[in-house]
Amino acid sequence: MAVYTEVPDEELNRFVADYDIGTAVSFKGIAEGVENSNFLLKTTEGVFVLTLYERRVDPADLPFFIGLLEHLAARGVTCPQPLRDRGGNVLKTLCRRPAALMTFLEGVWVRRPTVEHCQALGGALASLHEAAADYDGRRANALSVDGWRPIFAAVADRADSVAPGLSAEMETEISFLETHWPQDLPGGIIHADLFPDNVFFLGNTISGLIDFYFACRDMLAYDLAICLNAWCFEPDMSFNLTKGRALMNAYARRRPLGEAEIAALPILARGAAMRFFVTRLYDLVNHPPGAFVRPKDPMEYAKRIRFHRSVTNAREYGLGL
Amino acid sequence: MAVYTEVPDEELNRFVADYDIGTAVSFKGIAEGVENSNFLLKTTEGVFVLTLYERRVDPADLPFFIGLLEHLAARGVTCPQPLRDRGGNVLKTLCRRPAALMTFLEGVWVRRPTVEHCQALGGALASLHEAAADYDGRRANALSVDGWRPIFAAVADRADSVAPGLSAEMETEISFLETHWPQDLPGGIIHADLFPDNVFFLGNTISGLIDFYFACRDMLAYDLAICLNAWCFEPDMSFNLTKGRALMNAYARRRPLGEAEIAALPILARGAAMRFFVTRLYDLVNHPPGAFVRPKDPMEYAKRIRFHRSVTNAREYGLGL
Repeated sequence: MAVYTEVPDEELNRFVADYDIGTAVSFKGIAEGVENSNFLLKTTEGVFVLTLYERRVDPADLPFFIGLLEHLAARGVTCPQPLRDRGGNVLKTLCRRPAALMTFLEGVWVRRPTVEHCQALGGALASLHEAAADYDGRRANALSVDGWRPIFAAVADRADSVAPGLSAEMETEISFLETHWPQDLPGGIIHADLFPDNVFFLGNTISGLIDFYFACRDMLAYDLAICLNAWCFEPDMSFNLTKGRALMNAYARRRPLGEAEIAALPILARGAAMRFFVTRLYDLVNHPPGAFVRPKDPMEYAKRIRFHRSVTNAREYGLGL
Repeated sequence: MAVYTEVPDEELNRFVADYDIGTAVSFKGIAEGVENSNFLLKTTEGVFVLTLYERRVDPADLPFFIGLLEHLAARGVTCPQPLRDRGGNVLKTLCRRPAALMTFLEGVWVRRPTVEHCQALGGALASLHEAAADYDGRRANALSVDGWRPIFAAVADRADSVAPGLSAEMETEISFLETHWPQDLPGGIIHADLFPDNVFFLGNTISGLIDFYFACRDMLAYDLAICLNAWCFEPDMSFNLTKGRALMNAYARRRPLGEAEIAALPILARGAAMRFFVTRLYDLVNHPPGAFVRPKDPMEYAKRIRFHRSVTNAREYGLGL
């Protein structure tokens, strides 16, 4: 949940007046999203989401994200669509921050994904990969295998205060991942953060995907591994094989996985869990007292890593079952 | 800003199904309000606000609030209207908390009130007092003069860590207020928390009042003193006489103030500032690290108290100017 910036009414009204969307009749901060400030804006003409880009989003990447959203929508993926102001601009400035106005998507994100939700997600992820295949924007994944050690190194000396022995365990794990990380798997544009709060449903049907601000080029199967971590573990960190099966097979039906991808899934899952472990650990030990956002627990991802270490075959995730 | 409770989708859908409002198509936590969890709920039939009542709201008081909202709306005050479910119930339970569904009000709260906004507020406050005059609900003001000492006493030993000498200064101030607090001024239902974030505007016109969860019976002029504190000081804590004049005279035009009320305004303003000083001080020193809500600065109200001590006559607030 986050609103980092207060938008004074005069500035809001000036901003809205740049567009052909009428005048503001309601403006509420949304208690979701931890990277940017998001507001639900209702005008006399419709409902929109206003995003102010805060820390962690590099303004130089914004054209990549905006272009991707337009590209995906043109290929039938329901995602927020940036509005252009009267001068044709998508990226604007509000309260000294980059800002963009997007269409509002209907749907509710599921707090407790079911097997049906995981199945729907698998299909949507494959469709997303297909739709983005001919997008020519370039953005490297700063949070892939080469990014984990620097983040971990910055906080490793405090890791043992979170759990005894954690520092040595994760040091070893990162070394293993660096040595064994797959190369040359099929690549493309990945969402890279497709957690339940970024997937809107109406009933069991996906109505939209949001928050593409980690999207980048990487191995497609790595995106599937991120979803496996985010959707198929129970609150006690146990792995739900039925959900894994629903997700993996729905994905593979739409985009069949190659042999190398299948063989790599256990290590991709370990790496995907490491990616969220290191950023959560970093955010936890650097958490300013009294900050708006409650830090997420890195141990949820340490436990996933330990689970994945025990997996030798993608069938153990449900693939092909 | 606050969302203290996550509502699982199945529980939300069951809750919505109790009403004749269609099915949920969007559900977003609102990053406003520090006492309760608020969600914007869009269904196939309309837009609503769902409130889960958290700490500080006594469930026994909820019928008073609900009845007041219905009473006010029947007399032309635009405020949230509680919906009844198919069984006629307004107060329900969701996620083990009292919950109510209200109509959505259009309007934007003003981050920087202007003179025009203060003038509109004065008229609206007087109209609110008039409309509530024949409401027969009973609720005492737990945060009036008798309530300040116990709250302050609980944290007085830590007040000097906020500012040197603060503890002794406010101890003396509370004693003064207890001795000189007015009795027998005209009473009625007051809002008691009519800060800018609880007043919606469309342009310079008030479109609705919200958040009646501090409403109670007390002196009507005390409500005006609360608004004077909340609306007529600048960010540097200087008093804006033009705004004070606009607020006070717009109020008095609709509900003329008696001589005793006018004479009492300086001490009512001191007391109104003390009410927010003690709760802000309490919240600051009891603030859990990592909590969602950034504590508000009690010194903003200490400075207001010091200003009001220098005032001897309501004309210094702009009344009658």
